[in-house]
Amino acid sequence: MKIAEIAEWIGATIEGDESIEITGLAKIEEAQSGQLAFIANPKYAKYIETTGASAVLVDFDFPRSEKTLLRTDNPYFAFLKLAKKFYRQAPQISGVHESAVIGEGTTLGKNAAIAPFVFIGKNCRIGDDVTLFPGVFIGDDCHVGDNCLIYSNVSIREQCKIGDNCILHPGAVIGADGFGYAVEGGRYHKLPQMGIVVIEDDVEIGANTTIDRATLGETRICKGAKVDNLVQVAHNVEIGGHTAVAAQTGVAGSTKVGRYVMVGGQAGITGHIKIGDKAKIGARAGVTKSVPGNIFVTGFPARPFRQEMREHASLARLPELLQQFKQLQKRVQELEKLT
Amino acid sequence: MKIAEIAEWIGATIEGDESIEITGLAKIEEAQSGQLAFIANPKYAKYIETTGASAVLVDFDFPRSEKTLLRTDNPYFAFLKLAKKFYRQAPQISGVHESAVIGEGTTLGKNAAIAPFVFIGKNCRIGDDVTLFPGVFIGDDCHVGDNCLIYSNVSIREQCKIGDNCILHPGAVIGADGFGYAVEGGRYHKLPQMGIVVIEDDVEIGANTTIDRATLGETRICKGAKVDNLVQVAHNVEIGGHTAVAAQTGVAGSTKVGRYVMVGGQAGITGHIKIGDKAKIGARAGVTKSVPGNIFVTGFPARPFRQEMREHASLARLPELLQQFKQLQKRVQELEKLT
Amino acid sequence: MKIAEIAEWIGATIEGDESIEITGLAKIEEAQSGQLAFIANPKYAKYIETTGASAVLVDFDFPRSEKTLLRTDNPYFAFLKLAKKFYRQAPQISGVHESAVIGEGTTLGKNAAIAPFVFIGKNCRIGDDVTLFPGVFIGDDCHVGDNCLIYSNVSIREQCKIGDNCILHPGAVIGADGFGYAVEGGRYHKLPQMGIVVIEDDVEIGANTTIDRATLGETRICKGAKVDNLVQVAHNVEIGGHTAVAAQTGVAGSTKVGRYVMVGGQAGITGHIKIGDKAKIGARAGVTKSVPGNIFVTGFPARPFRQEMREHASLARLPELLQQFKQLQKRVQELEKLT
Repeated sequence: MKIAEIAEWIGATIEGDESIEITGLAKIEEAQSGQLAFIANPKYAKYIETTGASAVLVDFDFPRSEKTLLRTDNPYFAFLKLAKKFYRQAPQISGVHESAVIGEGTTLGKNAAIAPFVFIGKNCRIGDDVTLFPGVFIGDDCHVGDNCLIYSNVSIREQCKIGDNCILHPGAVIGADGFGYAVEGGRYHKLPQMGIVVIEDDVEIGANTTIDRATLGETRICKGAKVDNLVQVAHNVEIGGHTAVAAQTGVAGSTKVGRYVMVGGQAGITGHIKIGDKAKIGARAGVTKSVPGNIFVTGFPARPFRQEMREHASLARLPELLQQFKQLQKRVQELEKLT
Repeated sequence: MKIAEIAEWIGATIEGDESIEITGLAKIEEAQSGQLAFIANPKYAKYIETTGASAVLVDFDFPRSEKTLLRTDNPYFAFLKLAKKFYRQAPQISGVHESAVIGEGTTLGKNAAIAPFVFIGKNCRIGDDVTLFPGVFIGDDCHVGDNCLIYSNVSIREQCKIGDNCILHPGAVIGADGFGYAVEGGRYHKLPQMGIVVIEDDVEIGANTTIDRATLGETRICKGAKVDNLVQVAHNVEIGGHTAVAAQTGVAGSTKVGRYVMVGGQAGITGHIKIGDKAKIGARAGVTKSVPGNIFVTGFPARPFRQEMREHASLARLPELLQQFKQLQKRVQELEKLT
Repeated sequence: MKIAEIAEWIGATIEGDESIEITGLAKIEEAQSGQLAFIANPKYAKYIETTGASAVLVDFDFPRSEKTLLRTDNPYFAFLKLAKKFYRQAPQISGVHESAVIGEGTTLGKNAAIAPFVFIGKNCRIGDDVTLFPGVFIGDDCHVGDNCLIYSNVSIREQCKIGDNCILHPGAVIGADGFGYAVEGGRYHKLPQMGIVVIEDDVEIGANTTIDRATLGETRICKGAKVDNLVQVAHNVEIGGHTAVAAQTGVAGSTKVGRYVMVGGQAGITGHIKIGDKAKIGARAGVTKSVPGNIFVTGFPARPFRQEMREHASLARLPELLQQFKQLQKRVQELEKLT
């Protein structure tokens, strides 16, 4: 593909040789002649000097280079558009395999691709263009929207609802019982978990992530939210629209996470609180109380980023302070003797 | 169901309209006319003003209200009893599916419900009223007690023992090899993990939780213990009876956790230590040494709660202290000049 | 087996009764007459007084005892050699089960043991002496080397490569999409994850661990690395040879972890950094920037162990310091009044 065609297609400006032919995409540090790379993270800017790429996608602030550059507002998004063009995968699953078990009253939409060893319970509604990989379990009375991709060994328990265009990665568990017990007579009594999980449209759920069903009502993952691997979402939680939750994070029961929130990896959010829209929760933060919108919190207990940084910086000076304090005490003692 | 009947059944006192008819249960903040809600967590007390519920289960300390109240010592447990009455699920799996593979010498108890794509190895003993969901794997020589519910894609490796009335949620892995190596010649040599996992009666294991088999002897989860999702229990650990372990916690090898212990989410407990009975481990605590019974520890390294709180509170004042200290140093210097 | 034979076989020196007959292996605290135990961790040295073992494997520094001792440089490794001798398991899976689905163009090596409900896609190459447990999913165009053991419900997505002698524990997910999005127009757009996962020879991957495929290029787990349960390895990460990663650790995108690194449990390592060879990352450490080789870092943000210890120790003294500081301020005030 001619670089001029690419530039036109993604709306980029060419700075350099307009005749280059592009044969594929690659990472800036590994790219070879004929390949197009991108720089979106400043950490990788240095590779412009050494990359073998024939051209590099950058933004308008990137310095001039001897390399041919394609300038665009959002090089990462431009790269994504190209990736979708260059990279097209043959479907691995097609048709409904004879070994699949599909319960009474369940309907499949058009172009359903149902792999071997898939189990679908009774009275489910599976939309058009849905692919279920081997080992998928779907309990009774579930809905799965159109154009969903559900990878191997995913479990979706009874009555849960999955919207359109969702991707569930291998091993994800949707709708297991919430962790709810009443204590009486010195032992735990299990509270029936009578609610469901609702996953709205355009949601992605990571590998081996667990989203528990509600005690009553719903656990809800709203439209466009993206949840990474090994995340725990407890009963009755709501994850707002277009919120991203990085790997190994846990959200405890009944907490409402707002829209456009970003949650870093390995964060923990306690139960029964609210995280405001567009808040940012740092990686490994432990959030112990509600957080307003548009704020960046870090640390444990989570507090505004600047405050936490200041406290941590001061902690590094504490050992020295303790020594200096002793000296000062002595000096004051000396002065007191003199007076 | 008449509220008077409900009150009698759960042993509650009615305060208000005794003629109300209850059609179902709901969360206090979402309940509508005809529904019964409960308040067990003070955070939700405010909803008494606005709830649409026809009646609310509360304890004897809850203030009077215009709403009809059902008073009982343990409203959450009363709610649980009602939930079990109102909420009864049809079985999703019944009979032994023809695709299930059941090894030689394995016996199934009465009313076994064995779903499609279940694999049971040789010489296993599966109790009465056991339900195995699709994709369950049980290795050779395992025992599963009566009345167990084992959800989809659970793996139980060879020789492990599961007691009566256990629930294993989807994707749980029981009896994978412990993480044990001897280093020799600059590389890791795998130590055969020759022990097993024993899960006693009335235990619940969360979705995608992993309980490793012992190197020698047993990893044991004792009677009535409840383990949440994505928990790691390493080889040779013992989790005591009626202990609850919240999600994403990890317990390292050979540690003994006592009875009636509560472990918060995302906690970590190092190997080869003991946690005393009725200890409470805070969420995200990192326990680095043995903890006596009846104590509440938090933070990392975990220490008594009050101490950790005091240290954290003082940390918030440290940046200011550093400034004030400098000023005091100057003042002492001034005084020294004068003398 | 005579103890003299054992001693000869593992190259140990007998100190005590050379005529003892050994019938099996056991943990020092549970061993009974006829059994051989070992002490490799000083925490267990006290059991030498009370153990029922007939003999105990120890190193040359261990004190003399009335018990018969077998002395060797590395008692844990000696124990491992014995364990391999004493403990030999019958294969649970053999032959290719008729329910297994094997795609066109896929080749199986000699002695392939393919369990029921295994799915292998098209054009895969499966080596000799490979065992695939029930519920294993392998996508199109994968390679699996010789002598691999892949436990139940493992998922390996398309094009990934597994070396020789690898063990993948139940529920592990290899090659799920990395968590990569470009933001445009206020929503997340999924970046196709076009790369693969390469797992080199002699690697072990824990239960329910997730290793994401690269955006471009490879995520790579190098020869001899050992990864515990519930670990998250993000796209484009490299885990160096002979590195051990304990349970519930997360490594964010594009980070390179060196060779012979030890990573404690529940650690977190941020993206786009480097961990030097033979570095040691403490349990629960949060690594926020590159770490040189041969260093031990702990805490969050991770810093050299001694520094972190000193800071934490000083934090415990901070509450008292705050009080003493106030007193000193008063004393200085008094002095100032006098002058």
